[in-house]
Amino acid sequence: MLVVKIGGASGVNINSIIADIANQTESGEKLIIVHGGSERATELGEQLGHPPRFVTSASGHISRYTDKRTLEIFLMATGLLNRRLVGQLQRLGINAFGLSGLDGRLFLAERKSTIRIVENGKRKILRDDYTGRIENVNIEAVRALQDTGHMPVVAPIAISDTGEALNVDGDRAAAHLAGTIKADKLVILSNVSGLLSDLTDPNSYIPNISAHDIDDAINNIARGRMKRKLIAAREALDAGVKQVIVANGKIEQPITKALKGEGTLING
Amino acid sequence: MLVVKIGGASGVNINSIIADIANQTESGEKLIIVHGGSERATELGEQLGHPPRFVTSASGHISRYTDKRTLEIFLMATGLLNRRLVGQLQRLGINAFGLSGLDGRLFLAERKSTIRIVENGKRKILRDDYTGRIENVNIEAVRALQDTGHMPVVAPIAISDTGEALNVDGDRAAAHLAGTIKADKLVILSNVSGLLSDLTDPNSYIPNISAHDIDDAINNIARGRMKRKLIAAREALDAGVKQVIVANGKIEQPITKALKGEGTLING
Repeated sequence: MLVVKIGGASGVNINSIIADIANQTESGEKLIIVHGGSERATELGEQLGHPPRFVTSASGHISRYTDKRTLEIFLMATGLLNRRLVGQLQRLGINAFGLSGLDGRLFLAERKSTIRIVENGKRKILRDDYTGRIENVNIEAVRALQDTGHMPVVAPIAISDTGEALNVDGDRAAAHLAGTIKADKLVILSNVSGLLSDLTDPNSYIPNISAHDIDDAINNIARGRMKRKLIAAREALDAGVKQVIVANGKIEQPITKALKGEGTLING
Repeated sequence: MLVVKIGGASGVNINSIIADIANQTESGEKLIIVHGGSERATELGEQLGHPPRFVTSASGHISRYTDKRTLEIFLMATGLLNRRLVGQLQRLGINAFGLSGLDGRLFLAERKSTIRIVENGKRKILRDDYTGRIENVNIEAVRALQDTGHMPVVAPIAISDTGEALNVDGDRAAAHLAGTIKADKLVILSNVSGLLSDLTDPNSYIPNISAHDIDDAINNIARGRMKRKLIAAREALDAGVKQVIVANGKIEQPITKALKGEGTLING
């Protein structure tokens, strides 16, 4: 079984990813798709006069401040993206089935309602944040859907134990799901070709990282979003996934090529 | 088994409906929820500068013209409502699971892309409409979800055979689903107490209609939205549902009271 995370960043070629999902399915692979949605949420927030507010934590980590309205916008934007992906897959004859981590409590998360940020050099506390850390993955429904011939397509939303919807990181959601469902591989597609040794050279991706070296890669090589992708990869390996591949989602046949080794392969 | 359609019109008391769904579940009833979303889509359309356009057919039937942007708005608004309902049910310990008719091709529909309307006394043809007529209901996934202890919560979206999302009438979607899954009863909750004999008296609901009299009720008593609710009721009865109850969603314990006979009961 294969979990594929589709990044929402600009440049990612959704049509070629969808076509390649169909290729993989035809060759007998069982797939689960997890998607993002941050970029769509940003667009929708701007259209609705509620643009995103990005904040920096004391440790230098940048994240989206998710107040109640931002959460609603995130729910709408990821919902639309989820339904579009399901429609595109169905068009190719794949019996896709969309869900989010709310459904059947797929991603049960602890809400982190308070975030400590640094703004203009001053420390501040923001409350009313709707983000979460996944604590538990309930895969009964995903299994039942697979057993009846459906391909799960999962939006990066979690649920708190009081039923609140929470924004969660899509890469880490994919890692948790891949680990819990005992997927062999997790492919994380984005708009870069892997972990780059030289950010100015898009072809400088590092072909292999062992589990032993991943902490070093996280701390000393990765920048920005890539740090979180590698943290997600480490979580997936810790949970028993055999291989994580961080690969290019902008090319034709991105999944097939990733599985052939085009990208950064991280072996457990 | 019981299918409950929750109308989105103003005045409907979602909290008391949710609490009553929990009551019914505790007493051992298996429920499927179908919701609307037109009102939320109208609000969102206004916020996004794309308010709905209502058109009148040659036969006097009023409907929402669903161009591509309106469809997106409808997908986002119903997606948000679906996720809210799932969260509220989960908060009460019900393992709710949201889906739309796209997922697993639950509602396979024929697209009616061209609509003939009358505007300022003139006949016109509008193209690029994204509405559909449900032709086939695929309940394998809904059954699998129920068999694993989940309560399906269904948004009124269908899919065409080319994977397009289509806007469908929620009452009729609920009727199709109830018929296909062989539900005993369909409860349609809205902001009126049933089929009124006197529109100026909200308590003048007709307590019983036989299947024999439903055409007469549709043609001679019902007005506006109620016509479509009765058409949906007729479709449900034709498909084998034993009883349809059109009842008040504004009161406490609306489902319990509907099942006790408070509302318009239509028997097959």
